[in-house]
Amino acid sequence: MAAGCRFFAGYPITPANEISEHLSERLPQLGGTFMQMEDELASIGAVMGASWAGRKAMTATSGPGFSLMQETIGWGYMTETPCVVVDVQRAGPGTGQATKSAQGDVMQARWGTHGDYAAVVLSPNSAQEMFDLTVRAFNLSERYRTPVVLLADETIAHVRERVRIPQSGTLEIVSRRHPDPGDTRFFGSDGVAPMPAVGEGFNVAVTASTHDEVGMRFTQGAPVHRRMIEALNKKIYSHTSDIVETERHNIDDCDVGIVSFGCTSRSVYEAAERAEEAGVRVGYVRLRTIWPFPEEAVSRLAEGAKRIIVPEMNLGQISGEVERIAGRRVVKVNKIGGGELITPEEILEAVKRAG
Amino acid sequence: MAAGCRFFAGYPITPANEISEHLSERLPQLGGTFMQMEDELASIGAVMGASWAGRKAMTATSGPGFSLMQETIGWGYMTETPCVVVDVQRAGPGTGQATKSAQGDVMQARWGTHGDYAAVVLSPNSAQEMFDLTVRAFNLSERYRTPVVLLADETIAHVRERVRIPQSGTLEIVSRRHPDPGDTRFFGSDGVAPMPAVGEGFNVAVTASTHDEVGMRFTQGAPVHRRMIEALNKKIYSHTSDIVETERHNIDDCDVGIVSFGCTSRSVYEAAERAEEAGVRVGYVRLRTIWPFPEEAVSRLAEGAKRIIVPEMNLGQISGEVERIAGRRVVKVNKIGGGELITPEEILEAVKRAG
Amino acid sequence: MAAGCRFFAGYPITPANEISEHLSERLPQLGGTFMQMEDELASIGAVMGASWAGRKAMTATSGPGFSLMQETIGWGYMTETPCVVVDVQRAGPGTGQATKSAQGDVMQARWGTHGDYAAVVLSPNSAQEMFDLTVRAFNLSERYRTPVVLLADETIAHVRERVRIPQSGTLEIVSRRHPDPGDTRFFGSDGVAPMPAVGEGFNVAVTASTHDEVGMRFTQGAPVHRRMIEALNKKIYSHTSDIVETERHNIDDCDVGIVSFGCTSRSVYEAAERAEEAGVRVGYVRLRTIWPFPEEAVSRLAEGAKRIIVPEMNLGQISGEVERIAGRRVVKVNKIGGGELITPEEILEAVKRAG
Amino acid sequence: MAAGCRFFAGYPITPANEISEHLSERLPQLGGTFMQMEDELASIGAVMGASWAGRKAMTATSGPGFSLMQETIGWGYMTETPCVVVDVQRAGPGTGQATKSAQGDVMQARWGTHGDYAAVVLSPNSAQEMFDLTVRAFNLSERYRTPVVLLADETIAHVRERVRIPQSGTLEIVSRRHPDPGDTRFFGSDGVAPMPAVGEGFNVAVTASTHDEVGMRFTQGAPVHRRMIEALNKKIYSHTSDIVETERHNIDDCDVGIVSFGCTSRSVYEAAERAEEAGVRVGYVRLRTIWPFPEEAVSRLAEGAKRIIVPEMNLGQISGEVERIAGRRVVKVNKIGGGELITPEEILEAVKRAG
Repeated sequence: MAAGCRFFAGYPITPANEISEHLSERLPQLGGTFMQMEDELASIGAVMGASWAGRKAMTATSGPGFSLMQETIGWGYMTETPCVVVDVQRAGPGTGQATKSAQGDVMQARWGTHGDYAAVVLSPNSAQEMFDLTVRAFNLSERYRTPVVLLADETIAHVRERVRIPQSGTLEIVSRRHPDPGDTRFFGSDGVAPMPAVGEGFNVAVTASTHDEVGMRFTQGAPVHRRMIEALNKKIYSHTSDIVETERHNIDDCDVGIVSFGCTSRSVYEAAERAEEAGVRVGYVRLRTIWPFPEEAVSRLAEGAKRIIVPEMNLGQISGEVERIAGRRVVKVNKIGGGELITPEEILEAVKRAG
Repeated sequence: MAAGCRFFAGYPITPANEISEHLSERLPQLGGTFMQMEDELASIGAVMGASWAGRKAMTATSGPGFSLMQETIGWGYMTETPCVVVDVQRAGPGTGQATKSAQGDVMQARWGTHGDYAAVVLSPNSAQEMFDLTVRAFNLSERYRTPVVLLADETIAHVRERVRIPQSGTLEIVSRRHPDPGDTRFFGSDGVAPMPAVGEGFNVAVTASTHDEVGMRFTQGAPVHRRMIEALNKKIYSHTSDIVETERHNIDDCDVGIVSFGCTSRSVYEAAERAEEAGVRVGYVRLRTIWPFPEEAVSRLAEGAKRIIVPEMNLGQISGEVERIAGRRVVKVNKIGGGELITPEEILEAVKRAG
Repeated sequence: MAAGCRFFAGYPITPANEISEHLSERLPQLGGTFMQMEDELASIGAVMGASWAGRKAMTATSGPGFSLMQETIGWGYMTETPCVVVDVQRAGPGTGQATKSAQGDVMQARWGTHGDYAAVVLSPNSAQEMFDLTVRAFNLSERYRTPVVLLADETIAHVRERVRIPQSGTLEIVSRRHPDPGDTRFFGSDGVAPMPAVGEGFNVAVTASTHDEVGMRFTQGAPVHRRMIEALNKKIYSHTSDIVETERHNIDDCDVGIVSFGCTSRSVYEAAERAEEAGVRVGYVRLRTIWPFPEEAVSRLAEGAKRIIVPEMNLGQISGEVERIAGRRVVKVNKIGGGELITPEEILEAVKRAG
Repeated sequence: MAAGCRFFAGYPITPANEISEHLSERLPQLGGTFMQMEDELASIGAVMGASWAGRKAMTATSGPGFSLMQETIGWGYMTETPCVVVDVQRAGPGTGQATKSAQGDVMQARWGTHGDYAAVVLSPNSAQEMFDLTVRAFNLSERYRTPVVLLADETIAHVRERVRIPQSGTLEIVSRRHPDPGDTRFFGSDGVAPMPAVGEGFNVAVTASTHDEVGMRFTQGAPVHRRMIEALNKKIYSHTSDIVETERHNIDDCDVGIVSFGCTSRSVYEAAERAEEAGVRVGYVRLRTIWPFPEEAVSRLAEGAKRIIVPEMNLGQISGEVERIAGRRVVKVNKIGGGELITPEEILEAVKRAG
C-alpha cells in the first residue's frame, strides 16, 4: 500500500506534470485510462501486462518507487516490452525530501537494474517538453521495443507554463510493429522483432530468462545469450542518431563549455548569455537525451573548450561521464537539498573562474 | 525474484494442470500468451493491467504466492476487474511442503483480503474440471466483473487423466460487456457495469479508493461507500443460482451426509458406494462452487441426515461453515502432511461410527 | 515506497493510538526505537529480523498493508516468531476510505494467510485498552511464540481519552524463554520451545518450510509436518483459558444476547442499559479476544437468550461464527461507510424487535 | 514467495560460497543463525530489523534479487544501517541464465538506488577471499555504519578451494560504536555517529526521510539535507585509504596495464606471466575494492602504461570508470553468456595487440 504511485495506460499524451494525488478527479479533461494501483510493484507489473495486451502504458514515480521498480524494469528490457517510466527526481537517497527537486537519479536511470542492457533516458526542461518528450518516449519505446525512462525533476514536473498541444493528427505517433500471420520470431532478431498482442492468435512465451528468437528458454550455453543480449544493445546503439538529441550552442567555438540537463539547463541559458555579454565565449550541450550519452556532441564541445563545467543538482554524477568522454577533469558545480536550484550566478561564477 | 509464478493471458483455456517450470518450452502446443514474471506481485499486477487493456488474463500460484497477492486481489474486487487466480493448495502455512497436496487455503480464498467483498471460488476434482472450471471461472469473472479463484489442490493439478477438449465453437465463452458510445458509468451500477478498455476512447479513472459510478473518488461520506460496496456484494449474492454449483447425491434421503470438495471428494464417491453396499444410506454434496457457500444444498442435506461428515485435508476449515448452516456440530475427518490423501476407508470408518 | 507504514521495536508499550505521520518528531516523549520503513513488506520483514535478533517488535498498519503482509505473517506463524501486528481497521476492500472506521478485517485476521495455523487476535475498545492490550499482545506473543494481532478500529485508535500508565514495575511483562546451553530443540516441542537469539551462540536454521524440532527441513513425509503443525495449533488451543478474555454481562440470564467487539461494543453498553430500563433482560459478551473465538462464553449466552444480536461495522462477519456456536441464526446489525458508528439507538431498535 | 533468498544473521563469518538451497541442513557445522525468508524484500527487511536490534546481519542474492532490494538498500544508506549484501553475479538482465557466471552488476552495485550516496563494494577472487572479504565487509559496515556489498560472481561463489579459517581470536572483528548514556546524536555527525540498539534505553527514530543528527525529520530546507548527505558521503570518501584495497603488480613500470576484478583476475595472473615470459612488461591492478574506485592505483598504472586492457564478463562497465581516470580510451575484452570465462589466451591476445 503506497500513496503516490500510479499507472497510466492508453493515450501516450497524458502530461506527467499534471500528475497529482487528485488527478482522478480531473481525469475527464484529459484522456485515456488512469489506474491507481496499491504500490509501485503493482504499477509497473500492470504496465507490463497492459503492454503485452497490445496497449501503450506508462507509470510515473519518484526515487524510492523507481528503486522498487528496478527488478521489473529489467524484466522489461529482457522481454523487449515497450513502456514509459517517468521518474520525477527529488532529494534522496531513501525517502529524503519528498517534494524537493534534485537530479540524483541520473546514473541510476542508466545502471539501476542488473546485467547488460541499453537504457534510453530522456530529460525534459520545460512543461512543453514534459509533453513533447512523453510523446517521444512512447515513440522510441514502440519503435525499439524497450522501456524508456522520462527522467524529470520536481522543478520541471511542477512548473506552470503554457503548453502547446498540437492539433490532432499533426503529432507523429509511432506504434509497435505487429507480426504477420505465420510469424514465429518475436524477439531479438536483426532490427526490432514484431510484437504480438495477447489474443491476436500467436503463440508466445514471454520470459526474462535467456530465450531465443521464438521465445524458447536457453539457460545453458553461451551462444543464444550472447546473440540476444548483443541484439538488445545493438538495437539501441546502432540507432543513436535517431535516439540521441541535444540542444547545442557554440559547441565548436568556445572557451568554456557547459554540459547540463533538466531544470539546471535553464540557469545555463542565462549564465551563458551573461558570460557572453562579459566577453567569455561559452558553448553548451543540453542533454535532451541523457542515455545513450551524447558522446559526439560532448566530445566536440570538449575538443574546443579550454574548460568544461558540469552543473547538476547532485554530488557529481553525469560529470563522470563527461570526464570519460572529454578525457580530462571537469569543473563540477553541485548543489543538493531543499530543492534549491543552481542559479545563473553560481554558474557564471564558475565560468569566470574557469575562463 | 521468485521461481514458480506466472501470468497467463489470452485464451482462457490454458489447462492449469499443465503448468510447470518448463511450460514455456511446450507452449506452442497450447495457445495464447504465456508470461513468466519475476514474482507474484508482478504477476498479479500484470493480470490487472492486461484485464483493463481489454484482455482475459489469469495467474497460477500456490499458498505463499496467493498470500502475497492478497492486497492486489483486493484491488481487483474493489475495481471490479475480471481475472482468474488459480491457487493450487499445498501443505502450509509458510513454505510448508512445497509439492504436497493439501486443502488448507479454503477459508483464505474467502477472507484473505480485507474489507467487505464477495468471493467466487470454484473447486475442481478432476483434470477435466481443471479445464471446465477454468473456462467457467473466466466466464463468471467476465459476467460479474470480479476476480474468480480456481482453488485446486496439488493432487488434482497434477493428476494425469484424459481431458475432453470440446470442439471449437461449442464452448460457452462469456465476455465482459463494453460500454456504448457516451456511456460514463463504469462501476457499481445495478447489475454489472460495462467495462471500457484502455484505448477504446472512454475516459476512466480506476481506483481502489471508494469511488462512485463514474470512477470519482469519494473517501469522506457514507452513502457512496455503502452503495458501492453493497453493489459489489449484491452482484454476486443475487446471482447465486447462476454461480453456485454442486454435485449432489441422495441429499434428501440419507442417514449420513458428507460434504466435501476437491480431491477429497473422490474418496467420498467410493466410500459412499461401499457404505450403501453395507446398508447405510449416504448422501453427499460436493462443492464445485465453494464460495458463495452452497447453503441451500447443504441445509437440505443437513435437514435429513442424522450425522454430517466433513472430510478435508486441513485441520478443520469448511466444516465450520457446514456447522453454521447445519446448526449443529459435524464429524470432522482431517488429515495433513506429506500430501497423503484421505482414503475411502477413513471416510467409511467415519460413516460407520456416525451411522 | 509507501506512506503510513512503520515498524516499532523495543519497549512493548508504545501506545498504538499515538501512531501518526509525525510520531517521529514526538518520539522522545515515548520510549524505544521507532523505524519508518519504505513499505509494509519492509516493515514486517524488519519485525521478523528484530524478533530473531532477540528483541520485541511490532508494526502498525491498516487494511491494505495488512493484506500485503499476509505472506510474511504466515512465515511468522510457521517459524514461531513472537511479534505484534496492529491492524487499525478502516473501510475496505482496497484503499477504500482511508481514515474511516470499520470492522471489516475480523475474518481476515483469522484466515488471511494460507494453511493451518491458530491466530491470536485481540480487540481493544478504549484508549486504555490500546495500551493494555498492546502489552498483553506482546506477553501472549512471547509466551506462545506466535504473531499476535491487535485488531483495532479507526475509532478506538484515534479516540482521545485518559490513559493510566501503570507505575514502572507493576506491569506484568512476559519474555520469551531462551534456551539453556546445549539445547538444540527450538521448534514445535511439547509446550513452547525456547527461542535462541542471533549471536547467543546457538546454531539455528529458521525456515518456513516444514522443519523438525531442531529446525531441519522435512518437506517429504507426513509425520513431521503433522506433528509440527499440530503443535503450532495445540500450543494455542490448549491454552484458551489463558488467551481468551471476554467482558460478560448477564450471560446466563437474559432474553436478548448481544455479541460485539471494538468500538461497536461501546454502543452496546448504552443500548443494554436503556433496554434494561425498559424491562428487557439483556446479556452481552464483548470479545476482548476475538480469536481463538470465545466459544464458551458465546455458547452460554446463546443457551439462555431467545435472540442474539450481532452488531458490527461490516456486512456480516463475526456473526457467522456466532451462528456456528449458537447453532442458529442471529440478528445482524450492520453498517458500513464514512466511519459512521452503529448507534445505541440502532442496537436498541434491534433489541426491541428481537425481544 | 521466492526460492533462493536468504537472510543470515549472527556471526559475520558464514562463508557465502557455502550458500545453497540445502544450507539449512548443514548449518550445524557452520555457526550462527540462518533465516530463509519468503523473498528478497522480506530478507533485506529482516536484515535491517536485526541490525537495529543490535546484531550483525547479511543476506545473499543474485541479480534479480539485488534489483528488488534496491529501495531498501537505499533505506540502509540513508539510515546508516550496517549490514552486508552479497550479490553473486550471473548473466542478466532479467532472470537471464540463472547459474551462469557474469560480472554485469558492477555499475549497479554503485548506482542501483536513487540519490547521492557512497557505495562500498568488495570483490573476492577466491574461496579464501569469499571468507576474508565477508569478514572485511562486516568490519567496514560496522566501522562506517553503512551497507557494504560483497560483489561476487558465480565462479568464485561456487569454486571449491581450500579455505584457511583463522584461529579464533586472531581475526580482527570490528563492532559498531554504541552510545554512552545521555548521548542523543545518532546520525550523521562528524566521523561516524554511535548507534543505539533496540532496547538499550535510548529514544531513537529511524527514518529514511531527511533527518538531523538526533533523527528528527527535516524535509523542507536545504541545510540539514546538505549537511547530512555530505556527511554520508564524507565518512566514506575521507577514509578511502582504509577502505580501498587493490592487488598491484608492476603498476609503475609497464607497457601494458590491466585492470580487472573477480574471477577474471585469475586469468590475468596467467596472461601476465606468459606475456612477461614473452618479453612484454605487464602491470595490473586487481580491484579488491571496486567502489570507492581505486583511483590512485589505476591512475598510476595509466600514467606509465602505453595501453590499458580491461577484461570483464559484461559488455563494458568498469572500463568506463578506468577510462575516466586514465583520461583515454582502453582496450575492452568482454565476454558474456553461458558462464564462459575470459581465458588467459584471450587476454594475452589483447596484450599482444596492445603491446
